Amino acid sequence: MKILFLGDIIGKGGRKAVSRYLPGLQQHFQPDFTIANGENSAGGFGLTRSVYSEMKFHHIDIITSGNHIWDKKEVMGMFQDFHDILRPANYPPGVPGSGCGIFTSEQSTQTIAVLNLIGRTFMGGSYDCPFRTADALLESLPSEIKTIFVDFHAEATSEKLAMLHYLAGRVSAIVGTHTHIQTADERIFKGTAYLTDAGMCGSFHSIIGMSEASIMPRFLQGMPTKLEVQTSDTALMGVFIETDEQGKAIHIERIASIEQRHQP
Amino acid sequence: MKILFLGDIIGKGGRKAVSRYLPGLQQHFQPDFTIANGENSAGGFGLTRSVYSEMKFHHIDIITSGNHIWDKKEVMGMFQDFHDILRPANYPPGVPGSGCGIFTSEQSTQTIAVLNLIGRTFMGGSYDCPFRTADALLESLPSEIKTIFVDFHAEATSEKLAMLHYLAGRVSAIVGTHTHIQTADERIFKGTAYLTDAGMCGSFHSIIGMSEASIMPRFLQGMPTKLEVQTSDTALMGVFIETDEQGKAIHIERIASIEQRHQP
Amino acid sequence: MKILFLGDIIGKGGRKAVSRYLPGLQQHFQPDFTIANGENSAGGFGLTRSVYSEMKFHHIDIITSGNHIWDKKEVMGMFQDFHDILRPANYPPGVPGSGCGIFTSEQSTQTIAVLNLIGRTFMGGSYDCPFRTADALLESLPSEIKTIFVDFHAEATSEKLAMLHYLAGRVSAIVGTHTHIQTADERIFKGTAYLTDAGMCGSFHSIIGMSEASIMPRFLQGMPTKLEVQTSDTALMGVFIETDEQGKAIHIERIASIEQRHQP
Amino acid sequence: MKILFLGDIIGKGGRKAVSRYLPGLQQHFQPDFTIANGENSAGGFGLTRSVYSEMKFHHIDIITSGNHIWDKKEVMGMFQDFHDILRPANYPPGVPGSGCGIFTSEQSTQTIAVLNLIGRTFMGGSYDCPFRTADALLESLPSEIKTIFVDFHAEATSEKLAMLHYLAGRVSAIVGTHTHIQTADERIFKGTAYLTDAGMCGSFHSIIGMSEASIMPRFLQGMPTKLEVQTSDTALMGVFIETDEQGKAIHIERIASIEQRHQP
Ligand SMILES: [Fe+2]
Ligand SMILES: [Fe+2]
Ligand SMILES: [Fe+2]
Ligand SMILES: [Fe+2]
Ligand SMILES: [Fe+2]
Ligand SMILES: [Fe+2]
Ligand SMILES: [Fe+2]
Ligand SMILES: [Fe+2]
Repeated sequence: MKILFLGDIIGKGGRKAVSRYLPGLQQHFQPDFTIANGENSAGGFGLTRSVYSEMKFHHIDIITSGNHIWDKKEVMGMFQDFHDILRPANYPPGVPGSGCGIFTSEQSTQTIAVLNLIGRTFMGGSYDCPFRTADALLESLPSEIKTIFVDFHAEATSEKLAMLHYLAGRVSAIVGTHTHIQTADERIFKGTAYLTDAGMCGSFHSIIGMSEASIMPRFLQGMPTKLEVQTSDTALMGVFIETDEQGKAIHIERIASIEQRHQP
Repeated sequence: MKILFLGDIIGKGGRKAVSRYLPGLQQHFQPDFTIANGENSAGGFGLTRSVYSEMKFHHIDIITSGNHIWDKKEVMGMFQDFHDILRPANYPPGVPGSGCGIFTSEQSTQTIAVLNLIGRTFMGGSYDCPFRTADALLESLPSEIKTIFVDFHAEATSEKLAMLHYLAGRVSAIVGTHTHIQTADERIFKGTAYLTDAGMCGSFHSIIGMSEASIMPRFLQGMPTKLEVQTSDTALMGVFIETDEQGKAIHIERIASIEQRHQP
Repeated sequence: MKILFLGDIIGKGGRKAVSRYLPGLQQHFQPDFTIANGENSAGGFGLTRSVYSEMKFHHIDIITSGNHIWDKKEVMGMFQDFHDILRPANYPPGVPGSGCGIFTSEQSTQTIAVLNLIGRTFMGGSYDCPFRTADALLESLPSEIKTIFVDFHAEATSEKLAMLHYLAGRVSAIVGTHTHIQTADERIFKGTAYLTDAGMCGSFHSIIGMSEASIMPRFLQGMPTKLEVQTSDTALMGVFIETDEQGKAIHIERIASIEQRHQP
Repeated sequence: MKILFLGDIIGKGGRKAVSRYLPGLQQHFQPDFTIANGENSAGGFGLTRSVYSEMKFHHIDIITSGNHIWDKKEVMGMFQDFHDILRPANYPPGVPGSGCGIFTSEQSTQTIAVLNLIGRTFMGGSYDCPFRTADALLESLPSEIKTIFVDFHAEATSEKLAMLHYLAGRVSAIVGTHTHIQTADERIFKGTAYLTDAGMCGSFHSIIGMSEASIMPRFLQGMPTKLEVQTSDTALMGVFIETDEQGKAIHIERIASIEQRHQP
């Protein structure tokens, strides 16, 4: 099975990158599933119906997310209407939405399980254990599901690698999100494809997708600021993964379509 | 000028990687300076005289560091004896050691200034502002110094990119350390070469250089553990940077010498 | 000199408590200065001109603050117009407002210096060292100023006590704010009156001034919420301090005017 | 039922305070149960068999704890031998020890359930939800148990008050520990006695039980230090609670036996 995954889409800058680069990538990789993290897709914070439609127009099959998924209140009603939107599974019981889904490809007859988890180190929230949540969800999957993709939305590199070592051999792929910067440590370990962070879709010459002007007072003056999405240039980052019929990863390849990497 | 920089060297696993891969890299790149972050080089925590000697034997010219530099008490006396060991410059006044040095190459007649800074987001310490510290140090450098290399030891991707935008055009290179995972976002921006994190030297199939067994109880059971360096396989990560005569970056290239990236 | 200090005033609930209890306390204690922390006085977040007027109507002479002072944008222009509003002094240079002021009593001819500082442990911001900022400000005060009052806005009990030990004998009083819960550890140590936290003015049977309904989802479900001030009952907490002519503390007394402490 | 609870006992300084003040308090209050938080009782970090014996000698019936309970490895074997040592119940399954016990008084025929919980805000660990853990444990208690005492070991005042509002009417008392500073907000709310923090047993003129010399470099220089227990003066802090036959709290009274509160 072929899976194309895109890191956090950051507002309009990110959506521009998707519309510019995704069609060509889908053409090139012929993925059975295109998955993207959409927690920042609407104005940099959260997800709306209109942005959801835009993502579906671009043949994004499944939308994962993270801590920012709640930022637009509209999302509360969307989970019921659209089962292809996930939020991290280790939110406590009773939280709207689901963190795990089984999907059948429109392009093929392939079936995939997608798990969305959130880390706890430096994440500040009140989340359940992502490791035991993963155990329970894997247990609950029908045995005929062979390919399992995990988006682990977390800050600390140690927690992300811990998840790899914990789930290695039990899932097809674990890809990190949340830091918005792509890491270069892609690997296959005991049948599991892994990348600490997929990066983001948005302006490359920004501060994790946001404008320099809107972020710098936080660091220089200790003052709260309203973050503004930067749209000056476009970049799409993600990862392409291929699995065998048993769901074992056989290929992992980072993707970085960057309008202009160097701006000397 | 040619600069070879290695990410955090993690104990014996990291030193094995250095002895295995560094000679070949130095042969290949012919750097004027080899710089390495040594905060974890002795047993995973801190730096000792014996490890320092080992690093000098391998022609590491300058050793930068971070929050773990204090872990072996022996280091306190070393700063006076060895001016090629730096600790982050934005430790408060009165802290032993220095965070900035000017060095002349033994291999050539080139001169470089090296700045070591530490971030504050998710870092927990009581550090001075790294941005204003950088301003003051840059101000203090003799104008004939053209090439300035910054090791910014920090956790948050946003803070590291903020430093790039703050210092762009004023320094030759900013390379991040501390997360132990190499990022894939190398770039030249307004004459400054940049990489969010250089990664580490140590076991690739570990949890940021440490053994799975020693880290997992922290995540699974919430219990403190003694971390143990993993030595099962070797990897060296870093970056090669070239500057012109004005100190402007003209080339940046990630380095990852990995014994076995995939362990299917 | 007699100083009456009130902990963080929390929105309408806090202002009700002030109007209900403060006149009687001023009558009773006859303070030369009434000082209050106003960072939460407008809707629970920040300070406005209208709330400022209300506080002046109640003869609050000086308003200190903390991390929430920026929450209403209106405050930016207020610092210039009203020199009796302070924000923590260890915000970096260039931040609007001042963290230290010298005030002469309208009620008497007494003069006091008030310092406002913010802690860094668990506070998440980019603040300068509160200890060295205190050193510099104390150095800058005219020697005829004998009475110096410090509002140290901080979370960690260790950092607050560290400030006591650092400044003991150099200032008249250090009173903590920010946790909204009054501590019972008032003392005089080397001439300095000290209380880890003054508490707050607001609803006692709330969650630090906010409604149970608005806070609980943060803890139970890990979801962001909009906090709502609770106004169901009123309580005023603070501290009364008396100094001798040399500025040495000779008396400290906690104040807690609580409409109904027990709600069985 | 009469319950005497002591806040975190800090090493030798704390044990001196216990031996000096506890006998008189037990004489005075005639408690059915004396409970103390022992997480710092051995050298400031953890608990040993010898310290345990000392606490039993002083008729401490039940020992609760917190994040520091693991600091002396010896404790691992003690949970099996001594069922009157608790660690927070919301450590993940599989962690040694128990966080809930039912105890019968040696002094009377009274029976009490004691719950130990740990908070997550600013606590950094990987703990399960303390609220749902409390639900599950309360559910599991035999209905004939009327008196339920909770030691909630947590940093944030908001999380502690959230626990009060969550458990009000379902338990007899909730007393916070961990900050080492006693708060002054004791109350009875819907039948539940509550105090945000009981404080500590140890040197009052210290920094949360530790010496100024051993803590200050952390704040002033950002450097790690080895903390040393201070023993210069003694203070015992805690709380006395009385419940009716239905387990409803009818009285709460703070206790602070301080050798010398003011040290002018
Ligand atoms: Fe994101
Ligand atoms: Fe995120
Ligand atoms: Fe490191
Ligand atoms: Fe580090
Ligand atoms: Fe406040
Ligand atoms: Fe505050
Ligand atoms: Fe403690
Ligand atoms: Fe603790």
